[in-house]
Amino acid sequence: VSGAGAGVSSELRSANAHSRGCAQTRAIQEALDTLRGNVKSLVVSGGIPRISSKSLTSLKFYREYVAKNQPVIITGCLNEWPASKLWSMDYLSKILGEEKVTIDFTPDGRGDSLTPDGKTFVVPATRKVRFRDFAHILRSPKPNRVAYLQHQNSNFSKEFKILHSHIKPLRFAEEAFSAPPDAVNIWVGDQRSVSSLHRDPYENIYCVIRGSKTFTLLPPSDAPYLAEQEFPLAELEMRRHEGGTRDCHWRINPTGQKVRWIPVDPDFPKRIRADAKCLRNARPDLISPLRCTVDAGEVLYLPSSWFHQVSQTTLTIAVNFWYDMEFGMRWALLEYLEHSTKIGSAD
Amino acid sequence: VSGAGAGVSSELRSANAHSRGCAQTRAIQEALDTLRGNVKSLVVSGGIPRISSKSLTSLKFYREYVAKNQPVIITGCLNEWPASKLWSMDYLSKILGEEKVTIDFTPDGRGDSLTPDGKTFVVPATRKVRFRDFAHILRSPKPNRVAYLQHQNSNFSKEFKILHSHIKPLRFAEEAFSAPPDAVNIWVGDQRSVSSLHRDPYENIYCVIRGSKTFTLLPPSDAPYLAEQEFPLAELEMRRHEGGTRDCHWRINPTGQKVRWIPVDPDFPKRIRADAKCLRNARPDLISPLRCTVDAGEVLYLPSSWFHQVSQTTLTIAVNFWYDMEFGMRWALLEYLEHSTKIGSAD
Repeated sequence: VSGAGAGVSSELRSANAHSRGCAQTRAIQEALDTLRGNVKSLVVSGGIPRISSKSLTSLKFYREYVAKNQPVIITGCLNEWPASKLWSMDYLSKILGEEKVTIDFTPDGRGDSLTPDGKTFVVPATRKVRFRDFAHILRSPKPNRVAYLQHQNSNFSKEFKILHSHIKPLRFAEEAFSAPPDAVNIWVGDQRSVSSLHRDPYENIYCVIRGSKTFTLLPPSDAPYLAEQEFPLAELEMRRHEGGTRDCHWRINPTGQKVRWIPVDPDFPKRIRADAKCLRNARPDLISPLRCTVDAGEVLYLPSSWFHQVSQTTLTIAVNFWYDMEFGMRWALLEYLEHSTKIGSAD
Repeated sequence: VSGAGAGVSSELRSANAHSRGCAQTRAIQEALDTLRGNVKSLVVSGGIPRISSKSLTSLKFYREYVAKNQPVIITGCLNEWPASKLWSMDYLSKILGEEKVTIDFTPDGRGDSLTPDGKTFVVPATRKVRFRDFAHILRSPKPNRVAYLQHQNSNFSKEFKILHSHIKPLRFAEEAFSAPPDAVNIWVGDQRSVSSLHRDPYENIYCVIRGSKTFTLLPPSDAPYLAEQEFPLAELEMRRHEGGTRDCHWRINPTGQKVRWIPVDPDFPKRIRADAKCLRNARPDLISPLRCTVDAGEVLYLPSSWFHQVSQTTLTIAVNFWYDMEFGMRWALLEYLEHSTKIGSAD
């Protein structure tokens, strides 16, 4: 039991000189060891299965995956979507050409992400851009400007009305969740854009239409090792270079607000300086990541509360559906796990 | 936050002089307070709903109750059972008359239960008895002999083959669990028999055919307050009185084995002496019990891992189905809760 949960209790040690021998701390460490073993053998060891939508009833989907909080890739269910046949950047530029859509801009593809010094959380600069111009920006990469169509607040429902008939609700999901989605989002970006590790309070049905998405998934029980904490929130501001070249330059504008975020990068652990203060309680060596690549035509069921980091290796177009998650016994027990291992944190 | 979780940490205090100020202990107490509040508002506050089987699809049953780990009473689904029309003690005596069935005998109706001094766990004396004689025993109560047909190890499947066609699997449950039951049990007893607080690693579909059953249910998250621990296991032995009267007398025979059990009685907190050593870590004041009476013709879905204590107010005949439970994320988180709050216990 020696050091297995040591990271979790390091703030405790500094906070309380008596705590080194505290029986409760040792009990927590042993309980965490057991939890990791159980989650590995019951949830993670089977990997992320790929199943055909043909034999997938809504009951089976709910029982085997949603109720178990178990990710799965479902094949064959986008064949009937007009989007699968029609969508390409050329086609979308033709259809949407003059329509203005919300685009997130960053210098490095990392929107909603911590700066490499681990001190600040930055949100992208957003601009309303004609879709045709967005397509041109993607075709003409610049070293310090990355565009990503990913604004999320149901951006597909709001800004892409002309394309609504190109996608269809997935029967097994609609029946299983017994309600329409809370939000439908569209994502268009290339290999330079990534989404840093986070989780959403939604059941997520993620449909890849062109290209492919690579997900790193962490089970909710990994929360004690990720050192989620508050960071100052800043906004990226994009400006043309004053010297008259067409390069951008960037400012980071503090907002005075705070946001909770995770400093651990499960794919590139060295992105944030290893001695950064925010990593003090992180134990990335104890996480249980699952990785998968979801290709065009495939759907990932990404269960609520799972941590995920997302990237792509080529130009990728995707649509996702967020359905309400269940706040019941499992959620309450997960909250207990997080509260019981969070000692002396800011909130 | 002061004393709310104090019972949980009392062994800790005696085990470790430094622990009084341990930040980890305070964090656990706060986390338990939050868990109790969340479970009350999300799970317990709605009580145990009564719903009609008419509108109950297997998907709805799984989504709204099984996946949520939420008890529910279902009405109207036993109407088609021949058992509902036919079964009475007279009828069963006629049909089963000479058949021998396994009966549990106790002096006080408390089989599988702790003695009032809280020092020993006793199992009933079992006898193979002609059903007709069992019916006679129920009709002719003696002060120190209680008979209960409840042997559980799929006793309906094994000892009541002649009645198998009188019950039918419940469609919503068979479809939802996607497998036949692991065990089918029959229960026949009167108001003197009770089942002390315990939980089963099964999804339980409990069907009352005659009489009524009263359940006290505790959510799995109440585990930290119940002081489950090891007790010496003893067997009750029933003997005729040597003086030649027809009264029984009883011996308690130690087995040398141990068994884990719960000393808390949520309905009669004074049954075990309040100063008994086994109650030292119990906090019955912090539990969140739900109570319900299931009448003839009704079915209780009793979710896996819920603690339950069961009694009846009159002669009652019931059949229950045990289905495999899911060992996944929720179970792993529940184990974490129990391990993280169990300090210095025997195992």
